[in-house]
Amino acid sequence: LSPSSYNKAMMVMNQSYWDSIHADVETHLREAIHVRPPLSVYEPMHHLALETPQNTAPALCAAACELVGGHRDQAMAAAAALHLMHAATYTHGHLPLTDRSKPMITHHAYGPNIELLIGDAIIPFGFELLSMSDDSARDISDRVLRVIIEIARVTGSQGIISGQYHEIQYDESKNNHDLELIKRISEKKEGELHECGAKCGAILGGGNEDEVEKLRKFGFYVGMVKGMLHRGDKSDEILMREVEELKSLALDQLTGFNATKVEAFANLVGS
Amino acid sequence: LSPSSYNKAMMVMNQSYWDSIHADVETHLREAIHVRPPLSVYEPMHHLALETPQNTAPALCAAACELVGGHRDQAMAAAAALHLMHAATYTHGHLPLTDRSKPMITHHAYGPNIELLIGDAIIPFGFELLSMSDDSARDISDRVLRVIIEIARVTGSQGIISGQYHEIQYDESKNNHDLELIKRISEKKEGELHECGAKCGAILGGGNEDEVEKLRKFGFYVGMVKGMLHRGDKSDEILMREVEELKSLALDQLTGFNATKVEAFANLVGS
Repeated sequence: LSPSSYNKAMMVMNQSYWDSIHADVETHLREAIHVRPPLSVYEPMHHLALETPQNTAPALCAAACELVGGHRDQAMAAAAALHLMHAATYTHGHLPLTDRSKPMITHHAYGPNIELLIGDAIIPFGFELLSMSDDSARDISDRVLRVIIEIARVTGSQGIISGQYHEIQYDESKNNHDLELIKRISEKKEGELHECGAKCGAILGGGNEDEVEKLRKFGFYVGMVKGMLHRGDKSDEILMREVEELKSLALDQLTGFNATKVEAFANLVGS
Repeated sequence: LSPSSYNKAMMVMNQSYWDSIHADVETHLREAIHVRPPLSVYEPMHHLALETPQNTAPALCAAACELVGGHRDQAMAAAAALHLMHAATYTHGHLPLTDRSKPMITHHAYGPNIELLIGDAIIPFGFELLSMSDDSARDISDRVLRVIIEIARVTGSQGIISGQYHEIQYDESKNNHDLELIKRISEKKEGELHECGAKCGAILGGGNEDEVEKLRKFGFYVGMVKGMLHRGDKSDEILMREVEELKSLALDQLTGFNATKVEAFANLVGS
């Protein structure tokens, strides 16, 4: 194999790795939120949860669990809960409120009232999935509780909510080149969500504290890269230099892990 | 002491019992949500959580814990979480949405955007408090996880949310004498919330399954009584007869518990 076809083959293989994880998370979600009575609740919940675009944080959770030697199934409830938290934020982020100047997306399958209530219902549903994933036969209550704390923090007041708060300010200001604000939003939204995903996966997979810490950092840098590229102007050299630094910090965290598995992780930052 | 002054003394004593529990729940909440950075999040969160009128479900949680022989402190995190879930529902229930005909309360200290986001932040914060109440020295992870599942259910899709959904329909219809609808809303809102409170308190206090089950039922009947009296027309004889039946069912659950402690519980249904 020539180096370029080897690289191409690796990229395809890494892509199919993430595709298979995304597919497993989606299957888990479909089963967890299968439509059941009361239909007035589960039908929109199923719809809103599955319509919300997938985010890499849940996939990273399952992959981190495998990287430390666990099986991805051990992290599926946490990955699904992370997607649900993201879906609740996404739904409420697009809610037409009387003090928001315009609806941010044009098509809503349900009215604001339903979207508000279902968003509210999705959050505890995520915690319910998580706590039910406790397996007394395997004595993992401590790991599950630790993960609940992590996910509660990142979903709540110290995490996404304050990112969303800044994002609304950002969307309403016309200054879309404020790098500091872009960084603060990316930190609170994508950064901490990916940090949490990777950390929770490592905890559930039975990683040691060093592994948990490295994956936590890796997740944070990956999320920052995603958030900054999503919000920032790619022709801005200062921004792009910072992105490159973050990518390199992310890759640094991967030393010491199983070399073949690490490939897919490196792929996540486009390296 | 004459029988009537004895009764009066008992009522005062029972009232002061509930007052002391309400005060403890409030103190616990104030400490848990003390205002800290980011102020843009914690200030409205503190305000909204403490401005929300107290509900008896959290107090019942702490009292049930004591009734089965525990100390009320063991149930304080769960009681605070129950209040927070109630506060989130209350805040979002009063949010001015574009498809709600009129704001339901006139004074809002914060704009809808903040009330939406803070309501969202309050829910995971409740779960965070709960999971942090795990005490590895006392090996209660299983109890804490069981309580998280209970609270997630009652807060989420199967519980309050569907009650709130029916309540909005009820408020918008002009038929305020639909007893079946009043019962369905009371079941989903006050009924299940009090059921959950009493059950969680009994679990955390180390009650056996029989005690947990009796207190669960007691809580449900108490909540139904409260909800039906709150929503229904007290001159409606059919409704008042059903309320009396529920009170008597509630009292039946108290047999077998410590007689002096039971007084305060009986007081809760006005007996």
